[in-house]
Amino acid sequence: MKCSFQHAVTVRVRYGETDQMGYCYYGNYASYFEVGRVEAMRSLGMSYRQLEEEGVMLPVSHFEVDYYKPALYDDALEVTTSITELKGPRLFFEYTIHNEKGDKLCFGKTTLVFVSKETMRPISPPTNFVELIEKFQYA
Amino acid sequence: MKCSFQHAVTVRVRYGETDQMGYCYYGNYASYFEVGRVEAMRSLGMSYRQLEEEGVMLPVSHFEVDYYKPALYDDALEVTTSITELKGPRLFFEYTIHNEKGDKLCFGKTTLVFVSKETMRPISPPTNFVELIEKFQYA
Amino acid sequence: MKCSFQHAVTVRVRYGETDQMGYCYYGNYASYFEVGRVEAMRSLGMSYRQLEEEGVMLPVSHFEVDYYKPALYDDALEVTTSITELKGPRLFFEYTIHNEKGDKLCFGKTTLVFVSKETMRPISPPTNFVELIEKFQYA
Amino acid sequence: MKCSFQHAVTVRVRYGETDQMGYCYYGNYASYFEVGRVEAMRSLGMSYRQLEEEGVMLPVSHFEVDYYKPALYDDALEVTTSITELKGPRLFFEYTIHNEKGDKLCFGKTTLVFVSKETMRPISPPTNFVELIEKFQYA
Repeated sequence: MKCSFQHAVTVRVRYGETDQMGYCYYGNYASYFEVGRVEAMRSLGMSYRQLEEEGVMLPVSHFEVDYYKPALYDDALEVTTSITELKGPRLFFEYTIHNEKGDKLCFGKTTLVFVSKETMRPISPPTNFVELIEKFQYA
Repeated sequence: MKCSFQHAVTVRVRYGETDQMGYCYYGNYASYFEVGRVEAMRSLGMSYRQLEEEGVMLPVSHFEVDYYKPALYDDALEVTTSITELKGPRLFFEYTIHNEKGDKLCFGKTTLVFVSKETMRPISPPTNFVELIEKFQYA
Repeated sequence: MKCSFQHAVTVRVRYGETDQMGYCYYGNYASYFEVGRVEAMRSLGMSYRQLEEEGVMLPVSHFEVDYYKPALYDDALEVTTSITELKGPRLFFEYTIHNEKGDKLCFGKTTLVFVSKETMRPISPPTNFVELIEKFQYA
Repeated sequence: MKCSFQHAVTVRVRYGETDQMGYCYYGNYASYFEVGRVEAMRSLGMSYRQLEEEGVMLPVSHFEVDYYKPALYDDALEVTTSITELKGPRLFFEYTIHNEKGDKLCFGKTTLVFVSKETMRPISPPTNFVELIEKFQYA
């Protein structure tokens, strides 16, 4: 199911997230994207915390980023997260990050997989999640 | 029980652990101390991983560090860990870190507490751990 | 100079900041305290970013935390930061963190030192910072 | 220039690198890959630290990972790094990580760009680096 749900959240670059180049370290974007998708899901009506408490996990199976310009210390970054597709147990996200000047700093993608906490195997997404996402289905 | 078990391990400062001052970020020493105490326990004959698998956790209840000189990118740090005392459910560690030039970079302490994974309450340390540590008892 | 400036900010525990105990890893509080003091200084009228751009750094020389209860995934933590004293080049902070239920999770302290970026030596705090902090002086 | 230089290094998963799923957090692989490529370059005769001291930086412009199986706490991971191509200012790396049981945990790629510290612009790779890498050229 192709869908087009989008949500934006602001994350400020912490000092400990910079490196000696004065850039935000490239690995830290993983955690900004995590904030992006967790808040996107929350705004959709789905708490990731609750999902886990109900026995469903969402590990990442694919992650990629193209970095265009560095994020710098204390930058208030706008992380825009799109849920683009739900395909079997797999959920696809896309992200763009802009700084306050409006520069596009990076574009990223992640694939997450619905997994049962008990069996550690891929499972169908919970019905209530499918219902929430269906509202944003297209084509 | 006062004791004096000491163990040294080398940890190299990663790029992502530096900050824009060009220093190793002050919070990252927590993870160097963790490496220090896990390897100290392993050399004593006690795997922290196995401890957890047997239902015992060791959360940190106190942590302190005095920083004298910065650790820099790519420094091969010598982390010296001392197990100094076992008192009821509490286990006390001390750490010093030196760089390759022999400069003393910091001195730290942590207190850890033996906790049951099931009840989440403090418990007596496992007998086999006490036996291992008793060999280094003094006074 | 003893002073009593206090400021509160909310920080949400990220997934990557938890560990396999399900607790927020003890080293990550360093970065919550950093957020606390940076926002405290900003609310006082002092940007840490600008301070560095003007050639002044504020490395941490002492850090300590007492952990009472674990912070958990997705907890919205209230970090309360107090600037308690300015003594020569040294600036003293205290922190408490509460979760949404009002539980006090930890108490911490840091000492920071005003250092010249050029000489890497301790220096007197910038006059504009002293003026800001003097408003909250007591005794 | 296509090349085929390969190097392996062992990295142990730290407690603070796990998350509450009990997996190594997906963002931490960025730092394992960093260790992989820094040690690969060192074994080739090129210190990344020295490179920076000579005014050359190597920021990451692309990063991607496919995760097959989770890395777990205390796993001694074998990170195998390949330098696969040097094309203008861009240097291409590939990585595979295996655990001690021989399971392939992930496959990743990064693109890094030689950048002048002074101008912050892409530059030709240093001659001594090209000479080192030419020994492993093919086709």
